[in-house]
Amino acid sequence: MKPSIKQLTMRVGRSLSRRRFLTAAVSVTGLATARALFHPLSAQARAVPEDPTRVPGDPPSPYGQRSEFEQAARLAGGPRSLTPLQALHGIVTPSALHFERHHNGVPLIDPARHRLLIHGLVEHPMVFTMDELKRFPSVSRLTFIECSGNSAGEWRAPGGRTVQETHGLLSTSEWTGVALATLLREVAVKPDAAWMLAEGSDAAAMTRSIPLGPVMEHALLCYAQNGEPLRPEQGYPLRLLLPGWEGNTCIKWLRRLKLGTAPFMTREETSHYTDLLPDGTARQFTMVMEAKSVITYPSGGQQLQPGFVEVRGLAWTGNGRITMVEVSTDGGQTWQPARLEDPILAECATRFTLPWRWAGQEVILQSRCTDETGYVQPTRQALIAVRGLNSVYHYNAIQSWRVARDGRVSNVHA
Amino acid sequence: MKPSIKQLTMRVGRSLSRRRFLTAAVSVTGLATARALFHPLSAQARAVPEDPTRVPGDPPSPYGQRSEFEQAARLAGGPRSLTPLQALHGIVTPSALHFERHHNGVPLIDPARHRLLIHGLVEHPMVFTMDELKRFPSVSRLTFIECSGNSAGEWRAPGGRTVQETHGLLSTSEWTGVALATLLREVAVKPDAAWMLAEGSDAAAMTRSIPLGPVMEHALLCYAQNGEPLRPEQGYPLRLLLPGWEGNTCIKWLRRLKLGTAPFMTREETSHYTDLLPDGTARQFTMVMEAKSVITYPSGGQQLQPGFVEVRGLAWTGNGRITMVEVSTDGGQTWQPARLEDPILAECATRFTLPWRWAGQEVILQSRCTDETGYVQPTRQALIAVRGLNSVYHYNAIQSWRVARDGRVSNVHA
Repeated sequence: MKPSIKQLTMRVGRSLSRRRFLTAAVSVTGLATARALFHPLSAQARAVPEDPTRVPGDPPSPYGQRSEFEQAARLAGGPRSLTPLQALHGIVTPSALHFERHHNGVPLIDPARHRLLIHGLVEHPMVFTMDELKRFPSVSRLTFIECSGNSAGEWRAPGGRTVQETHGLLSTSEWTGVALATLLREVAVKPDAAWMLAEGSDAAAMTRSIPLGPVMEHALLCYAQNGEPLRPEQGYPLRLLLPGWEGNTCIKWLRRLKLGTAPFMTREETSHYTDLLPDGTARQFTMVMEAKSVITYPSGGQQLQPGFVEVRGLAWTGNGRITMVEVSTDGGQTWQPARLEDPILAECATRFTLPWRWAGQEVILQSRCTDETGYVQPTRQALIAVRGLNSVYHYNAIQSWRVARDGRVSNVHA
Repeated sequence: MKPSIKQLTMRVGRSLSRRRFLTAAVSVTGLATARALFHPLSAQARAVPEDPTRVPGDPPSPYGQRSEFEQAARLAGGPRSLTPLQALHGIVTPSALHFERHHNGVPLIDPARHRLLIHGLVEHPMVFTMDELKRFPSVSRLTFIECSGNSAGEWRAPGGRTVQETHGLLSTSEWTGVALATLLREVAVKPDAAWMLAEGSDAAAMTRSIPLGPVMEHALLCYAQNGEPLRPEQGYPLRLLLPGWEGNTCIKWLRRLKLGTAPFMTREETSHYTDLLPDGTARQFTMVMEAKSVITYPSGGQQLQPGFVEVRGLAWTGNGRITMVEVSTDGGQTWQPARLEDPILAECATRFTLPWRWAGQEVILQSRCTDETGYVQPTRQALIAVRGLNSVYHYNAIQSWRVARDGRVSNVHA
């Protein structure tokens, strides 16, 4: 390959019109155009200079936007949207792409009027404003949140085309808030309290029962995500975070905590979020997300080129840290340890990579992870042997991607 | 305080018009309105329901926006914008609020046409496309970037009113890219090469000389920030990252690396980015950012209330990890160790906190950090004793905030 600096210093193309979007704004007439406006510099709106060194650039801005050439998006439909894991790097999910799951939409809440009530089996029931909550000692943690319905489409047959469709109800953020334990000391929980009801102020008034116990030591009432205030779809202005527990228990738009002696048997822990077993009984309050991993590159819907390939993926567990991820390129017959990237944090996604060379043959790619409890992510067969095929939630089996000879990658059950 | 659940279940106010912004879009006539449109749900555009549980919420969206009630912004002016550290939590800076410093604006670059040339003292000069760069093994790291001009206004007198004005040229992201060492192996650097020129494709064609040496083991060519592609103002599509080195050396919009035997003596390392000492000589190539810390709460321009106060701040060093942060509430006479929050990573901001009680007296708040080399952040007096008062760059002295009896916090030199 012969280098040519001329390649890099071409003449200026059409002149850059940085403000053309303002002109466009005057003639807005419909939804599509209005959407384009939310991105101030849409690709249609201005010419790209052939040589950017010849054209003064844009001035600084109060709040940045991504490049107009980048369009990764959540797949949004029904009451949820999915994180595009195939398009992301590292472990942090940009807040704009954190998955959503809500049960009656994203409420519009004025933080100045929002209140948190803590009552029930407490000595001093209290109502807190957001300003009051922010004055307590703060805690920040990088943790994943996974909807327990993540990968639910994989129980019976390959249900998702891409990793976004199969595993996109998983995201990772740095969360900041006040420790639940701090507030429970403030209200003085009575000795007979054993459970806590958490209630959201969305139009579903989402409620879940949380057992008092070890998780309470790590639970946060969060007001910030990735440095800035929570995003509306993540519970603005206040969200319960139970690191490693199913997303549904991390009540968004949190307005009430009630201490009691027993679970409150709300709709979302009786008719939903239970696991129906082969014998007809149901597991209830199975809230810890067990270890799981997935290869994000190469993954379903992608096109592979022969030669060097860095296999990349994510692993996570609700039980502490990931200690090992192995990758198989032969459908699970042999396994190689992947490199785990620092930082490896408890209840946080861990990025793994494995250098590989693809010679153009058909292969089945898999990853399996182990966490610090010694738990190993199960095969589909092992998971189904225990759980049967009646479940919706808590599917954490090894995922298989088939690379065909033409390089196309697809979701298979191997 | 008597709790009242009625406070939380008030009657519905005016009906929610989620789509009113579309109507507004039709009548856009000027800049202010166009700006409001970029936020699809501006506070003026719809009524906030008194009880959000009575109103179905918004549907999921492909790419989220922050709440219309949150307006933290970079202070943008001239060739730079400043991160609002006083408004942020944890260590991650949202990409939209990462500080900017550019020397002729933010260029508009089509990633499909962008190339990286590596030439000079190499066996195999090469030109890489972005797709080719992304196929190499990837590395992700949480690191700070600090402009060496950060706090430059503090050399002679208190120059900034807020911590955004005094320390806002500091931000932290998770960066992902290919290790520079990987590419240098690919082109086979010749034995006599000792320096590397890095050149950007902005309208300043920014160039800096980097000595080959230990930093090269950690240098990355980044294409991603906080999970998604680099933001335009951070160098999209490609940026050199030298963890812990002054921001200006982390060349944005990177298009060329040239290996040579000596520094290239470019404008930005001769007329700028040098440190003029009292004896009239200048330090050159002082690129490692030494240990520094600042209290972000309470900080300049804020209003303190008597009672419990959690002192919060950030500490960082270009020389590995922060090992200790101490806080003084008496202008440096006595010091207490602050809590350091995990994860504590090399060349990354570390969050510190200290519980404190403010009784309404006048106080001077300070923080000082120590890094793993044993280096202790200096006082102003100690820094000036060595560096004099002719410098612009590399000011890392202890910052003092005065809390007046009325609770107002201001920047002072104590």
